[in-house]
Amino acid sequence: MNFSSKLIEDAVNEFSKLPGVGKRTALRYVLHLLKQNEAEVTQFGAALIKLRSELRYCSKCHNVSDQPICEICSNPHRDSSVVCVVEDIRDVMAIENTQQFRGLYHVLGGIISPMDGVGPSDLNVETLVQKAATGEIKEVIMALSTTMEGDTTNFYIYKRLKEFNLTVSTIARGISIGDELEYADEITLGRSIVNRTLYESTFSLK
Amino acid sequence: MNFSSKLIEDAVNEFSKLPGVGKRTALRYVLHLLKQNEAEVTQFGAALIKLRSELRYCSKCHNVSDQPICEICSNPHRDSSVVCVVEDIRDVMAIENTQQFRGLYHVLGGIISPMDGVGPSDLNVETLVQKAATGEIKEVIMALSTTMEGDTTNFYIYKRLKEFNLTVSTIARGISIGDELEYADEITLGRSIVNRTLYESTFSLK
Repeated sequence: MNFSSKLIEDAVNEFSKLPGVGKRTALRYVLHLLKQNEAEVTQFGAALIKLRSELRYCSKCHNVSDQPICEICSNPHRDSSVVCVVEDIRDVMAIENTQQFRGLYHVLGGIISPMDGVGPSDLNVETLVQKAATGEIKEVIMALSTTMEGDTTNFYIYKRLKEFNLTVSTIARGISIGDELEYADEITLGRSIVNRTLYESTFSLK
Repeated sequence: MNFSSKLIEDAVNEFSKLPGVGKRTALRYVLHLLKQNEAEVTQFGAALIKLRSELRYCSKCHNVSDQPICEICSNPHRDSSVVCVVEDIRDVMAIENTQQFRGLYHVLGGIISPMDGVGPSDLNVETLVQKAATGEIKEVIMALSTTMEGDTTNFYIYKRLKEFNLTVSTIARGISIGDELEYADEITLGRSIVNRTLYESTFSLK
């Protein structure tokens, strides 16, 4: 495509590096920005620059944070004996939105995936082991994706934590609320029968 | 959504102002940027700021340009007696990509749309009339969308240019290459029969 301006070409190239954005969508974004006033576009650009340069990660749970220790870790009302292990910060947001979990998190920053060249040393595993070694954690809840990579990571972390006196659990797998039984895959349906819950225990969520 | 960081929230809000981008997509973009190194993200932000602050419009055709007069207008090999009127700079790119037009452009910067509060005074119409008044233009080709707004704009510009000694034409409407006749709408099919072209004239494009 001929953009007739180097500035437009640069901006289109930058936008098209984003996931799922092609040249046409990028151009649509750029033309939209051209119609905005200068202050707004400057604010957009500045927000991106600040995002990467000023953002810090919580030294305890590796979640994003504006302070050295994030709001969740520094909240005295949360149960620090339960730690939920997640892949990335998006999962923290998703679980926080359910308002069902009052413990702390541990963000791995990825999952073990030999295909993508991600090994245990690329993840925040050592700090989790150190936390476990203090003896303050009673339960570690694994909340990773149900993929080959997720299962591998679950197993690796389980092996590393086995020596400590704590419980390792995984989030329940089963039929989603609203799903029809006949369309569920066999593994999910099988697991949902094996790991069935007492009918009374569903009342506590209501 | 709770973003656990003001910086992330700001960046998500900025991205979600883009057309067709919701909070979830914006968050996906932001998390992608967090994985890039700082220099790349700074370059992205800087490209956006420069885009809006340094971009100039060609004083002749109102196309975007890095110089006061754009590459198309300043090209001596192009036919300055034919002017193609388009809605925005995206249309210039689209027509340029066909490599079938050797004249100049005139970018209106929108179309007349009373519903959106856009009247003739919001568009670059006066400069087109001034160009026509010099007598150097032989033909004005209207290349606007076939909508109510496009037709209104076509008619308005036609009325304004009527007093000058020039031809006003519109781009051909008809069945797209590869389209099936039976699925074409009646107006398009009707126009394609009324404005049929000589079979020999299609050879020149091959």
